[in-house]
Amino acid sequence: MDRTVIGLDVGGTFIKAGLVDRRGRILARVKEPTEASGGKMQILENILSALQTIEESPLCRRRITAVGLGVPGLINLQQGVISTSPNFPGWKNFPIQKMLARRIERPLFLENDANAAALGEKWMGAARNSRDFCFFTLGTGVGGGLVLGGKVWHGADGMAGEVGHITIDPQGPRCLCGNRGCLEAYASAKALRWMVREARSAGRASRFFRGLTWRQIDGESIHRAAKEGDRISLEAFDRMGSALGIGISNLINLLNLERVILGGGLSAAWRFFIPALRAEVKRRAFRAPAQRVKIVRARVGEDAGVLGAAYLAWQGLGIFPLALQSTVD
Amino acid sequence: MDRTVIGLDVGGTFIKAGLVDRRGRILARVKEPTEASGGKMQILENILSALQTIEESPLCRRRITAVGLGVPGLINLQQGVISTSPNFPGWKNFPIQKMLARRIERPLFLENDANAAALGEKWMGAARNSRDFCFFTLGTGVGGGLVLGGKVWHGADGMAGEVGHITIDPQGPRCLCGNRGCLEAYASAKALRWMVREARSAGRASRFFRGLTWRQIDGESIHRAAKEGDRISLEAFDRMGSALGIGISNLINLLNLERVILGGGLSAAWRFFIPALRAEVKRRAFRAPAQRVKIVRARVGEDAGVLGAAYLAWQGLGIFPLALQSTVD
Repeated sequence: MDRTVIGLDVGGTFIKAGLVDRRGRILARVKEPTEASGGKMQILENILSALQTIEESPLCRRRITAVGLGVPGLINLQQGVISTSPNFPGWKNFPIQKMLARRIERPLFLENDANAAALGEKWMGAARNSRDFCFFTLGTGVGGGLVLGGKVWHGADGMAGEVGHITIDPQGPRCLCGNRGCLEAYASAKALRWMVREARSAGRASRFFRGLTWRQIDGESIHRAAKEGDRISLEAFDRMGSALGIGISNLINLLNLERVILGGGLSAAWRFFIPALRAEVKRRAFRAPAQRVKIVRARVGEDAGVLGAAYLAWQGLGIFPLALQSTVD
Repeated sequence: MDRTVIGLDVGGTFIKAGLVDRRGRILARVKEPTEASGGKMQILENILSALQTIEESPLCRRRITAVGLGVPGLINLQQGVISTSPNFPGWKNFPIQKMLARRIERPLFLENDANAAALGEKWMGAARNSRDFCFFTLGTGVGGGLVLGGKVWHGADGMAGEVGHITIDPQGPRCLCGNRGCLEAYASAKALRWMVREARSAGRASRFFRGLTWRQIDGESIHRAAKEGDRISLEAFDRMGSALGIGISNLINLLNLERVILGGGLSAAWRFFIPALRAEVKRRAFRAPAQRVKIVRARVGEDAGVLGAAYLAWQGLGIFPLALQSTVD
């Protein structure tokens, strides 16, 4: 077996691509800027250029038989069209599958980026041996992938899994999607920044953010401040945890899942939000399904999207991806 | 084909049983009091007595080959055990499958009552031709059945579909499940009564409820008052509609369903809660999946549970239930 596939993960900032074998080993990798502001044709060119870099890499002696592609947004899978994408406003009703397939000249399998990352965790990470789980990416926003019966749950049009946009509090803060009180308005880096800003305007100055411009205050700096005991940051993570706990309780009561997996950059702040999260689940979810579900951190990290896209490509070829060995209890 | 099955629907007040053929025709039916307060052995006896009445009915000349049973509560399907049931407090960890199968001497197929009703709507009602839908029973409480890919979604232990207990407002009214602000605390007959009582204690007397004792104020009398223009009742249905709209928006964003079907006694008050419901969905759900989903009233009515339990029995026998003709657009 000398075949490989390419997994592509198109994010708001970077395009990541990996040459992946059937066992989930990444044999070569590329990370290039997305240049989202350059418009959709520019992004397409950058995707193709990342592919080409992989193909021309000296490590790439194997035959590339398919490409898996994870992109952010609501995707109509039947049509291969991105319906809307918050990160790429120009991609409204964008027929990405058709436009790329023509130039890639290989089978191309499209997926929402968070769904792809969920598959990456299933293949190589915290969702191994799990058939029914929800994967959260806690980053700039909150993305999600729902896997039911071992498969990504797409719903009627391929747009399911938007866990970041379930309502936590109907009177809560405004979300970029237009709604109020979405999970994303509490459990994302964007939301944490708002909370810090709110505290600031309420006259609660924190020495940890003194001297930082508004742009420099991000998930990481708030995490650092929390580590040093900053009240405002600790409170922000507490609110994040409560909101996640409410959302996860809804999932438990509705879907009776085996696992909930929290990934994305903000999941590094696990210990600051997990107590409030678990308290909320204890309070709100039915006992039996709440005792059943395991709430765990993602394991694959940054590569989840690339691996998941590759997994999709293998599956699309009708080849069952193998796993090296189980790393999960 | 002279075989039939029996569908049983065990509710808090009545046990309904029907002799059902493969085309979903109810050939004989029985409705007997559950006598829930008499304890679990009494309820079992009443279930068996309902079965016997059907078997001895003059109409029953056909061979009864299986029994489907819908019961309220969280059910561990692998074990055939009712984990907890709000209507039957004595049924905690109750091995109903084993206890009944012994005396019924026919294959017995167990299901949650709302899941069974969802199957009834799929077989003969508003969910025909629909693979992905959620069915709500709006009655004393709020029950639900989730059908994904044409099958009831059970989750890891068979306890999924508790749509009545997703959080609508974290600071909302106390729910009997112990949580706060559940959908059931807004969209059930119990909740409407609380709202009317609340208005009363706030000094807002309504002439429609004058002379009625607290026990006489129920979903039906509140519905009647709304028909006659009672402000308090209209406001209560409005709050019910908003809460349903928030919960349904969560389902749309999470699951991208084809249909949402509202059944149960309170669904008769459709025109009083549907405007607020649709306004909330418009506000909160993503546009594409919200345009796709059809929110409709249940069609089968009171028989949904019996028919669904029968459907389950046919399926359990490995016999595909037939449908007379599609009544759905």
